Amino acid sequence: MQALGVISSPAAASFALTTRQSSVLPPLSHRISQPCFPLGRGSPLVARRKLVTRSQAVAVEKEVPESERPETFLREADGAGDGSGHQPSVRARFEKMIRETQDAVCAAVEAADGGGTFKEDVWSRPGGGGGITRVLQDGAVWEKAGVNVSVVYGVMPPEAYRAARADADAKPGPVPFFAAGISSVMHPKNPFAPTLHFNYRYFETDAPKDAPGAPRQWWFGGGTDFTPAYIFEEDVVHFHSIQKQACDKFDPSFYPRFKKWCDDYFVIPHRGERRGLGGIFFDDLNDYDQEMLLGFSTECAKSVIPAYLPIIERRKDTPFTDQHKDWQQLRRGRYIEFNLVYDRGTTFGLKTGGRIESILVSLPLTARWEYNHKPEEGSEEWKLLDACINPKDWLGIN
Amino acid sequence: MQALGVISSPAAASFALTTRQSSVLPPLSHRISQPCFPLGRGSPLVARRKLVTRSQAVAVEKEVPESERPETFLREADGAGDGSGHQPSVRARFEKMIRETQDAVCAAVEAADGGGTFKEDVWSRPGGGGGITRVLQDGAVWEKAGVNVSVVYGVMPPEAYRAARADADAKPGPVPFFAAGISSVMHPKNPFAPTLHFNYRYFETDAPKDAPGAPRQWWFGGGTDFTPAYIFEEDVVHFHSIQKQACDKFDPSFYPRFKKWCDDYFVIPHRGERRGLGGIFFDDLNDYDQEMLLGFSTECAKSVIPAYLPIIERRKDTPFTDQHKDWQQLRRGRYIEFNLVYDRGTTFGLKTGGRIESILVSLPLTARWEYNHKPEEGSEEWKLLDACINPKDWLGIN
Repeated sequence: MQALGVISSPAAASFALTTRQSSVLPPLSHRISQPCFPLGRGSPLVARRKLVTRSQAVAVEKEVPESERPETFLREADGAGDGSGHQPSVRARFEKMIRETQDAVCAAVEAADGGGTFKEDVWSRPGGGGGITRVLQDGAVWEKAGVNVSVVYGVMPPEAYRAARADADAKPGPVPFFAAGISSVMHPKNPFAPTLHFNYRYFETDAPKDAPGAPRQWWFGGGTDFTPAYIFEEDVVHFHSIQKQACDKFDPSFYPRFKKWCDDYFVIPHRGERRGLGGIFFDDLNDYDQEMLLGFSTECAKSVIPAYLPIIERRKDTPFTDQHKDWQQLRRGRYIEFNLVYDRGTTFGLKTGGRIESILVSLPLTARWEYNHKPEEGSEEWKLLDACINPKDWLGIN
Repeated sequence: MQALGVISSPAAASFALTTRQSSVLPPLSHRISQPCFPLGRGSPLVARRKLVTRSQAVAVEKEVPESERPETFLREADGAGDGSGHQPSVRARFEKMIRETQDAVCAAVEAADGGGTFKEDVWSRPGGGGGITRVLQDGAVWEKAGVNVSVVYGVMPPEAYRAARADADAKPGPVPFFAAGISSVMHPKNPFAPTLHFNYRYFETDAPKDAPGAPRQWWFGGGTDFTPAYIFEEDVVHFHSIQKQACDKFDPSFYPRFKKWCDDYFVIPHRGERRGLGGIFFDDLNDYDQEMLLGFSTECAKSVIPAYLPIIERRKDTPFTDQHKDWQQLRRGRYIEFNLVYDRGTTFGLKTGGRIESILVSLPLTARWEYNHKPEEGSEEWKLLDACINPKDWLGIN
């Protein structure tokens, strides 16, 4: 299923296909010379000139702002349940879960912040789907926290679909897909309080229009990982323990497998480091019962608050120096390097017409790049870097 | 010649091929699972685990630090001149020019800064080539200024070479290439003082080893562009006038052509903006006399100081508020978005084994990302953004 992999990142909120990217996108020079649709429709600045350049082959529709949250972003046919006893579709239940998670996480974060509040932007796309972006900026505890949900109806190139079918000789047309997800990154101010990222998503394809017998596909993806600038072993053990508990309720193989997957995904190859201390990550998951995986995703999403907020409570008021802050800012620079250069969801979202501000809300408010910075061997900064280079078995289970 | 285009950016110092990238690099998942060589050889932290993952197909050799600047980074056969009346090769004269430019620019910048000094790192590669990276960090005027030269001997995949030959039916082997360049980015502290980038480079390919009759190729590339956070029209006109003067000494078509090329290259498609107010940019230039283009590149490099430093002198002590500084920091965020997501040299250098610290010295010391920031219509910030969206004809020549 790897070839059908969908976004894997904070940018989940702006969904797009991913792995087939290089075979689908035209060369950059074509993109630059081929205006498709303007960014920021309605802006007097932007409307003047349609210079924005996205690949038409994979672009999603331009979003439009909404003044109110709709009850659902699903198309009517997608089965939100009619009160007559029909079980709502997986699409509908997944949307309900991510919206409840968004509400719960935002309420808990606002309460813990004690100062900032989330601003909300609601948007939709004319052909169906939409999203809710919530951002708390310059709060008392967090410098920036974004929690986004989105629902996307799109069409993937047939190559992406064919690549996932071992038996495929046919040449089907474009494949309609559905995707829904929640995506969040929270960057605290205090350098001893870690950044958190989580993202859970559900994906379905229809059969290609001219290949009605071809299989319909579905899969789940997501994860929760955290990025401290300094290591407090009790924090790391707590965080990973909660991930393991959530996993163990469903399959004892999940935690070790998804912990390693996380360590392997959030790598900054040019640095030879991971961006943080991991957690769990999975993608393209469809080789278990669909109801079980819906339950597992729900459990993971519910585990975000107990995994993260106790650590924030312990660290948010720790006294710190300018040097601690600078190191946090340097690690934020690494976060940006990963997200902008390697993260599949971010890079693909940027190039194919996702909602830019929702994608880039994952970036910290501020960051720093010093030339050739190397922490002193044995220092606390060095220990963090070492753990980003050599991932550890925090729970001692191997 | 587009297909043979070489790096086009601050990352010039770490040279790599570019345009054929997507056909050469394996998919990301392969790169991540295929350790090639470690980053930061010699570091106790990094040597433990060879996790770093570069494409072997196009990677350059790992650099090693040198304690002294060699007289030349050229291989002996490359004709630095023997004092017996032979004209030194273009390679040798280009290296001499960029090293003299590096000395002159660093001396002028240190004098204007009045506080900071450049730190120097010299490095070489075992098979030939190397570079000098100079960085002034946290000076009185500049928060970060990097001026790098490098010489690279490498091998390009035959696809890249064949693509540039209209007559090519043969299947030659890997093509040896030579590249030399100077690359610089300077970020001042004062939000009214602009960031400058310049980069000049020369590129040669040998004939493929098993196609001795095939043509040898050469070309020049580069440019100088600037990125203010606020517009002072006299600064913009001064900067562009100097570029035009340098161009006009060689060909009256150069300035309008290379000004447009610059406007078209430094685009951030997902923002619908350019990163700054342009200048000149050219690439793959070989359809003029080689001596003429060597002279033109030299003239452009010599124009950096008179184009930039008078503006810095005027603006470096201008009083400013926190709001001015925040806007500068937001524009620095855009600079980072362009360099990390789109700049061919940066992205390719990062993924193929360039010297990371030399490549990323182009990033500012600090930057900022606010959610959905929109300057008030008619404000000074709005005017800058407008000019980044709608490039202007600053000299009124069209």
